[in-house]
Amino acid sequence: MAVLRVGVAGLGTVGAGVVRLLAENFSVIAARAGREIVVTAVSARDVSRDRGVSLEGMNWHADPAGLATDPDVDVVVELIGGADGAAKSLVEAAILAGKPVVTANKALLAVHGSTLAEMAEAAGVTLGFEAAVAGGIPVIKVLREGLAGNRLSRVAGILNGTCNYILTVMREEGKDFSTVLADAQALGYAEADPSFDIDGVDAAHKLAILAALAFGRRVDFGAVHVEGIRRISALDISFAEELGYRIKLLGIAREISGGVEVRVHPAMVPKGALLAAVEGVFNAVLAEGDFAGTIFLQGRGAGAGPTASAVVADLIDICRGGALPVFGARMGALADTPAVPMPKHVGAFFLRLMVVDQPGVLADVTAILRDCNVSLESMLQHGRAPGEAVPIVLVTHETSEAAMNEAIARIGKLASVLEAPALIRIEPG
Amino acid sequence: MAVLRVGVAGLGTVGAGVVRLLAENFSVIAARAGREIVVTAVSARDVSRDRGVSLEGMNWHADPAGLATDPDVDVVVELIGGADGAAKSLVEAAILAGKPVVTANKALLAVHGSTLAEMAEAAGVTLGFEAAVAGGIPVIKVLREGLAGNRLSRVAGILNGTCNYILTVMREEGKDFSTVLADAQALGYAEADPSFDIDGVDAAHKLAILAALAFGRRVDFGAVHVEGIRRISALDISFAEELGYRIKLLGIAREISGGVEVRVHPAMVPKGALLAAVEGVFNAVLAEGDFAGTIFLQGRGAGAGPTASAVVADLIDICRGGALPVFGARMGALADTPAVPMPKHVGAFFLRLMVVDQPGVLADVTAILRDCNVSLESMLQHGRAPGEAVPIVLVTHETSEAAMNEAIARIGKLASVLEAPALIRIEPG
Repeated sequence: MAVLRVGVAGLGTVGAGVVRLLAENFSVIAARAGREIVVTAVSARDVSRDRGVSLEGMNWHADPAGLATDPDVDVVVELIGGADGAAKSLVEAAILAGKPVVTANKALLAVHGSTLAEMAEAAGVTLGFEAAVAGGIPVIKVLREGLAGNRLSRVAGILNGTCNYILTVMREEGKDFSTVLADAQALGYAEADPSFDIDGVDAAHKLAILAALAFGRRVDFGAVHVEGIRRISALDISFAEELGYRIKLLGIAREISGGVEVRVHPAMVPKGALLAAVEGVFNAVLAEGDFAGTIFLQGRGAGAGPTASAVVADLIDICRGGALPVFGARMGALADTPAVPMPKHVGAFFLRLMVVDQPGVLADVTAILRDCNVSLESMLQHGRAPGEAVPIVLVTHETSEAAMNEAIARIGKLASVLEAPALIRIEPG
Repeated sequence: MAVLRVGVAGLGTVGAGVVRLLAENFSVIAARAGREIVVTAVSARDVSRDRGVSLEGMNWHADPAGLATDPDVDVVVELIGGADGAAKSLVEAAILAGKPVVTANKALLAVHGSTLAEMAEAAGVTLGFEAAVAGGIPVIKVLREGLAGNRLSRVAGILNGTCNYILTVMREEGKDFSTVLADAQALGYAEADPSFDIDGVDAAHKLAILAALAFGRRVDFGAVHVEGIRRISALDISFAEELGYRIKLLGIAREISGGVEVRVHPAMVPKGALLAAVEGVFNAVLAEGDFAGTIFLQGRGAGAGPTASAVVADLIDICRGGALPVFGARMGALADTPAVPMPKHVGAFFLRLMVVDQPGVLADVTAILRDCNVSLESMLQHGRAPGEAVPIVLVTHETSEAAMNEAIARIGKLASVLEAPALIRIEPG
């Protein structure tokens, strides 16, 4: 069969990785795809930069949109990034030109995924995005194909390697957040502007995509509840250890009565749970199907090699053919299951207060919790320091988030409570 | 699009599970597959047995081969089992009739996989076997599609839940093999005739399939080195704990100089390794790709639900179309990488001897190891019992299996060595 001619937009680490992978593994890829896959055109800002790969014989486009109309390009690989701008224009132009698209762009998919999927469906072209979530782990394929016979009840994952690295180092070295972040930046594990990662936005983009696939809904980034890891303290990490938990930034999509919860936030996970053992820059995803049971996947969530592996898997799928609906079913057949707002969330909570060590404080706190219908599983206070600030840790039974919020508002107003209470949700993991 | 009409041969737990899954999740499956999937015909021995699912309106075939020619059947699902006989006849007849086949039959695939794949390729029909390996874990899909851009260097897995359950309970309860096996049989976790599982044959069938996919070779069950877990003692499990290892029955396919090693045997795995943490009836597979890095998958490896999930995933893939080569590439494009025989294996070893506690024994043993070029990493002997039998444990550095075999043969002949030495390979896990 004819060669599959690929145009690559964006020649950063990942783009160069894709060019290198297609060259290095050329013959095994051809044998598996049933046809040769060749990069015939590229687009990037700087034509002269050395990227460690040969671009010889490839058409060069200063404007990425040129790939959509290049007659030497059958498939467009979009690695520019960003929810709008050049990335979006290129993907739209390629689809309208009837060319399949492969992208690693989670922001684009999270924000415009439904519209782009409708365009792709109308044009009858593939929109592949394995590389957009969890890098080298084929989680899109596992959810959309491997578990396609199942109704899923829950998908939970560690979707951001930077956050997981920071939390791992904080625990191992007992350092606080800002110190570890600065170290991570120096080592290149965190960006100069780290907010996208540490505020949970990157994980939320990925979770929005997973939730759409898992529950057969349209992608709905706006419905994702997002909290990052800035407020996680060394103190809470050490209390977590003592109570038998690890703190992880989790993305969770879960079917509950009335709809679907979709949330990214730090969570306490029991140490024995699969997600608790995922350390450093690794990513992992756990999916619960009604027939398959729980499937757990772990691997490298970022980097040139793993991301290129996912891009090339999508290209090989395109060669092998078949009609794969973008979000697991035709857009018209997706369910309109509502997203349930966070106040309706029900779960257990870890609550840490800094209080003045004086008689009656605990009585005041527990009276408020009782009045808000929050029942306690355990309480922890170490040492005594009469008249000084001491931490008190409370672990609740399952309770509604609305009740918990009300209790915290009241507790925060007590004169003996010295800081805003720290609240971390507890998850099965 | 027209309904996909399925004929199911074999209505045991898994067959009934497939019928139930297709009925219970009928509409989500139709939305995902793009067409309705309906069981129109079945074959089993006993028409009257209650299987907890409705067979109303389905054609009944006393002879499974009838499904191949039934005009109401588009796809044949083979769940009879066994490498030959009715299962093989049915699969061949279906392929020759131009009908796609989905099977959970690892023995059939391991022994006749290459021939059947050639037949399927010639007939242009799909031969799906996701359910044949690791039940609900979509490992076939991950290797053949998700990691298709990678050269794999190693696949290692816990592929038999019965063995993993027995080894887990032996460790947790400190009981010996035969006691735990009897308990497992009473609980239904082990068959009345358990040899297929505990002698490693079932794991070897699965590994033969994974090795073919991972390394683009023809399936070669005969080349798999197979050892089971009968000889694992409570004593060695407790030494493993002390040395920081867990004993697991692993299936390992690894590229080494000169070819591919394909072996199933008990192995000591460091406690911190991913495979060491897989306990009870769970299965897990680890794959190392040159670009993706290490991918780890865990889930339920057997049972009606997980296996049915895998069968239905294959049926949905058939609806979605596309040409997927059975073993990852066209049969003519498979490599003829040779299998390397075990004596050429190089690795570290755990060696446990029962010796008479008397002066000079250790000197004799270490002299033999030196003469065979086996160097030691550590040695362990607890307590003293002059003139009595005591265990001595030796852990070697990397050495060739041939050298180790020679050393053991000589050590076994020493008058002070009272039992056949126990040898367990050490693996990274």
